[in-house]
Amino acid sequence: MLDIVLLGSGGGMPMPNRHLSSLLIKYMGRKVLFDCGEGCQVAMRKVKSGFKTIDIICISHIHGDHIFGLPGLLSTIGNSERTAPITIIGPVGISNVIKGMLVSIAYLPYDIHIIEDPKSPIILNSTNDGLEVVESDDLFGKNIILNTLELDHSAPCLGYNLLIPRQPKFLPEKALEEGIPKELWSLLQKGESIQYNEKYYESDRFLGEERKGIKISFITDTRPLREIIDFIDVSDLFICEGTYGDNDDLDKAILNKHMTFKEAAELAKLGNVKELLLTHFSTAMDNPEEYLDGIEDIFNKSIIGYDGFSKSITYTN
Amino acid sequence: MLDIVLLGSGGGMPMPNRHLSSLLIKYMGRKVLFDCGEGCQVAMRKVKSGFKTIDIICISHIHGDHIFGLPGLLSTIGNSERTAPITIIGPVGISNVIKGMLVSIAYLPYDIHIIEDPKSPIILNSTNDGLEVVESDDLFGKNIILNTLELDHSAPCLGYNLLIPRQPKFLPEKALEEGIPKELWSLLQKGESIQYNEKYYESDRFLGEERKGIKISFITDTRPLREIIDFIDVSDLFICEGTYGDNDDLDKAILNKHMTFKEAAELAKLGNVKELLLTHFSTAMDNPEEYLDGIEDIFNKSIIGYDGFSKSITYTN
Repeated sequence: MLDIVLLGSGGGMPMPNRHLSSLLIKYMGRKVLFDCGEGCQVAMRKVKSGFKTIDIICISHIHGDHIFGLPGLLSTIGNSERTAPITIIGPVGISNVIKGMLVSIAYLPYDIHIIEDPKSPIILNSTNDGLEVVESDDLFGKNIILNTLELDHSAPCLGYNLLIPRQPKFLPEKALEEGIPKELWSLLQKGESIQYNEKYYESDRFLGEERKGIKISFITDTRPLREIIDFIDVSDLFICEGTYGDNDDLDKAILNKHMTFKEAAELAKLGNVKELLLTHFSTAMDNPEEYLDGIEDIFNKSIIGYDGFSKSITYTN
Repeated sequence: MLDIVLLGSGGGMPMPNRHLSSLLIKYMGRKVLFDCGEGCQVAMRKVKSGFKTIDIICISHIHGDHIFGLPGLLSTIGNSERTAPITIIGPVGISNVIKGMLVSIAYLPYDIHIIEDPKSPIILNSTNDGLEVVESDDLFGKNIILNTLELDHSAPCLGYNLLIPRQPKFLPEKALEEGIPKELWSLLQKGESIQYNEKYYESDRFLGEERKGIKISFITDTRPLREIIDFIDVSDLFICEGTYGDNDDLDKAILNKHMTFKEAAELAKLGNVKELLLTHFSTAMDNPEEYLDGIEDIFNKSIIGYDGFSKSITYTN
């Protein structure tokens, strides 16, 4: 249903052996990118990902390791014959940053829409031109819903979750009972009420119980916050910064407004997520894998991220 | 005397197997960098180069593959405890570009001096703080002289040459003749005239014939120009763009304002350079080495550049 690729797993500075932390989500042939440090476009090439279908770029915060890949990526997307606009979402200040970056780009064949510091959910619908932001209060039947959460870092920073809502099960026996022809079932299934034979049918009557969709949460960079627990609640995948593997580095984590693996694992546990994917490792940490043992008693569905890690996520049952 | 490292050899876009064209010159423990595409700082790490001693950054032109690595590199230099200012030299527009880039950098612990579109030689002297730009009309005894040449590309573009002048040989027999004590010889050697025993001595009398210094030329991106021949004259190393290896791509070279290997080799021959180092290869060219045979009859001291290629250059005889 949905594929994720961790393009990079590093924090701070790009290194020869590790790209900067960045997540690519692929859904219905389109792409949403989370963060874009220097070298992001190279990491995309390494996983054989095309550039043309990136519709949405979500930026967590305005630190180089999360944004310096943007000018290059935007230019390379421009070389991919894309003409449809791209939406960039980010914290306070993102518009000025993009404006500054555009000084050095002579021409882009597409428009950039910027959503700065959104205060309400962003609804994305899939169209022939890709994922498009739509104005709507009705979340039913929408393809993707993006939410943001203010995090606690040394710069204004947004956490993101991405929801693919799942429609309730359609109940054909009810439609047969009412004698509604099969051609109209898909409308009811999509939550649209219909008029048939001069009678009005509310879709609710033909739909079963609510079903859990897919939820991906992306939390970086931050100290742990109580609000994160609700925000990531029952995520299928919780991508979280773990700048420090060694819990003895807690003082550094507090000072630099980051997290240790243990703190991320505790959030994962309290948030009842299905899996935790750690990323954004300090450049000083050569082998983050060696700290996995130390968190498995807290949350045993933890994955130490690595460049190119990929996973398909489907609806539960 | 002087070391060069070709950090990358690609043009257009950074690729998994090739960094973008960039040249690092190391001299007296300090560094001058020519061009800085995305990933330049990673290429520097690969060749184990530190960041703190980069004093001068020369930018050829404002295209992404030559500048998008600047924000990351400047930030990483900032993390290296550098406080001495850095000078960035570039074509018309470079000040605005740097200003735009600085919007996304919260803080740098050093100043940036910008020299936009210089119309006269830039003189660098080596001090305890590194290479510093000095105002001077007298080129004698100066450590480095940088010259620029306007090239012919799709954006304002500067070629560079870097000269390490060599002082004429000191003639001790002349000093002995005049009875000048040895403590004063070094002044004469440096071209300073002296007063001794109420007599005035012009340094010229104690110096032998002119000696060739070291000359490095960096020409990218451009069509071939007659002016380039004089500009690169008798270079020890002529680093030149060769975007297209196959001479059948000449039409592309003309259209995109680049050069074929053959055109670069012809410049090298006419410029009487010692060696030609080709760089800035098109992303479509996987094996530039296969086109070496085609230019050896034009200029047989041609080197196909590759990431990490390095060379020490010393005074001739």
